[in-house]
Amino acid sequence: MTGTSRLYEPVKPEMATVESLLRSLSKVEPPWLGEMLEAVLSRGKRMRPAIALLSGKFGEFQSELLVPLAASLELLHTASLVHDDVIDSAGTRRGRPTAGSLFDNHAAIILGDYIFAQAASLVARTGSTEVTRLFAETMVVMATAELIEDRGAFNYNQTTDDYLHRIKGKTAALFEIAAYGGALVSRADPRFATALRIYGDNVGMAFQIVDDILDFTGDAQEMGKPVGSDLMQGTLTMPSLMLIERYPKHNPVKRLFDARGGAEHVTRAVEMVRESDILDLSYRSARAYRDRAFEMLETLPNGPARDSLAALAEYVLERRI
Amino acid sequence: MTGTSRLYEPVKPEMATVESLLRSLSKVEPPWLGEMLEAVLSRGKRMRPAIALLSGKFGEFQSELLVPLAASLELLHTASLVHDDVIDSAGTRRGRPTAGSLFDNHAAIILGDYIFAQAASLVARTGSTEVTRLFAETMVVMATAELIEDRGAFNYNQTTDDYLHRIKGKTAALFEIAAYGGALVSRADPRFATALRIYGDNVGMAFQIVDDILDFTGDAQEMGKPVGSDLMQGTLTMPSLMLIERYPKHNPVKRLFDARGGAEHVTRAVEMVRESDILDLSYRSARAYRDRAFEMLETLPNGPARDSLAALAEYVLERRI
Repeated sequence: MTGTSRLYEPVKPEMATVESLLRSLSKVEPPWLGEMLEAVLSRGKRMRPAIALLSGKFGEFQSELLVPLAASLELLHTASLVHDDVIDSAGTRRGRPTAGSLFDNHAAIILGDYIFAQAASLVARTGSTEVTRLFAETMVVMATAELIEDRGAFNYNQTTDDYLHRIKGKTAALFEIAAYGGALVSRADPRFATALRIYGDNVGMAFQIVDDILDFTGDAQEMGKPVGSDLMQGTLTMPSLMLIERYPKHNPVKRLFDARGGAEHVTRAVEMVRESDILDLSYRSARAYRDRAFEMLETLPNGPARDSLAALAEYVLERRI
Repeated sequence: MTGTSRLYEPVKPEMATVESLLRSLSKVEPPWLGEMLEAVLSRGKRMRPAIALLSGKFGEFQSELLVPLAASLELLHTASLVHDDVIDSAGTRRGRPTAGSLFDNHAAIILGDYIFAQAASLVARTGSTEVTRLFAETMVVMATAELIEDRGAFNYNQTTDDYLHRIKGKTAALFEIAAYGGALVSRADPRFATALRIYGDNVGMAFQIVDDILDFTGDAQEMGKPVGSDLMQGTLTMPSLMLIERYPKHNPVKRLFDARGGAEHVTRAVEMVRESDILDLSYRSARAYRDRAFEMLETLPNGPARDSLAALAEYVLERRI
């Protein structure tokens, strides 16, 4: 992927090993299973593995433990995307067909389970019961947030706090365990580990807020999914919550949710958000999380790993896809 | 559940602790999540936890390690059922509504993920990286078998060997890790651990073969699902494979699979199986696995735990639901 590889410079060889490890998972019997795995594992920016490896630089960097951790994070992320795609019945993700459309939904559900299992298997290779336990607990937190999101679909009685809590579980928890897990596996100084944990959480929050902004501003072609797709699925994000707050009556989001659909309401909501300062305000919120991540990095020893983590936090805000 | 509780006598207090642990998982926020969990966790014969606990009796029995292992096995089993039910679009299981019909399919997928995660979290509490790793690998094996089953749906070019291989992964692998895991966590003599592992595998094989027989002989009301439901879903089992072998031409199973449906073909296939000696032969095969399980028990020290494991292997054959 463009834009991220330069950020991973201090852990370039280990990122290559993570890639090989992920690729090796596709070399299984029966061959069609390998093809399914390759189809879903070849995509992605690998941000979570990179954060884990970079965080490992603040302790005793042991690639034989960090690489399985890094790969397991990417697998957990992928498994969760595979199930998301079934749930959303999304046809494309980043311009590529999703698992649910490549295979049938049944196969996609089990494929997700298979990838979860491979993730659990790899994390056990770190030999750390603490990291393994935290990893499982992160899965619990992620699933809880997904259940809450599913339950709240097409319900506009939600607050920005509900949203922040939801994305903390859905997205930030995995960034948090990436950074914290990398530090723990490397037996980093506990102060560094805590700083990295908070860094991960905040980068994850910024990442998701920007992701949700891009659903309003992004180019459908570039993003590989239609603009306003969150609203279409009944999911409220920061911009749409702000829109509801500003126009509590006669709001296209409310009309959309009441009718459980209606492309014209989505178009109108996207227009109204774009014409307002809502996106600026949303970016401001994302920047506040990034700044908190920067603050945490300030407490860590200076060097290429810290610079990369800072650049990564910056990239999260600048990205267009 | 009737019929099994007497078998669990030597581990009665620990089985009660497993129940409490499982029940405690339902005490979560938000309350509707607790209700979903209770709905799917309150069912089941708890055979896998019992096998784990009983196997623990052949080493240093530590309930604080064995109970989380036992509960995690039940959770893994439950999660896999929850996803199966979504896949099969089954409306009932053991006479109760399935997760997919109680909640919507979306919620059921994430609920399954949530339960997988809780299982992984509990197994990490055993403090054994070996057991944790084996547990994750069992999940991989189970998912692989499920994928193969899904892929082979409505394909009658399958052999009994394919079937045995499939149920080894789908069912026996979990019985195997139950027995072996219980032994490992208790640091049992490696010879005992190996014997228990083979015991578990064989009991699991017998269990699944009988399960598949019951789909032909069972009482729909008692079973809580229609007779012939495997065939309806395009899944070949030992009896239907034997039927195809005997009547390679003009076979109702082939007609059913070619047409991808047809209740009259299912009825005809069930009749033909019932009127033949196919069920006797299938039971004979299940008994051979049970006997192999008995042989393994012979190598273990005599006592109530061994007696219970033997009674359990016998129960697997005698059960009617």
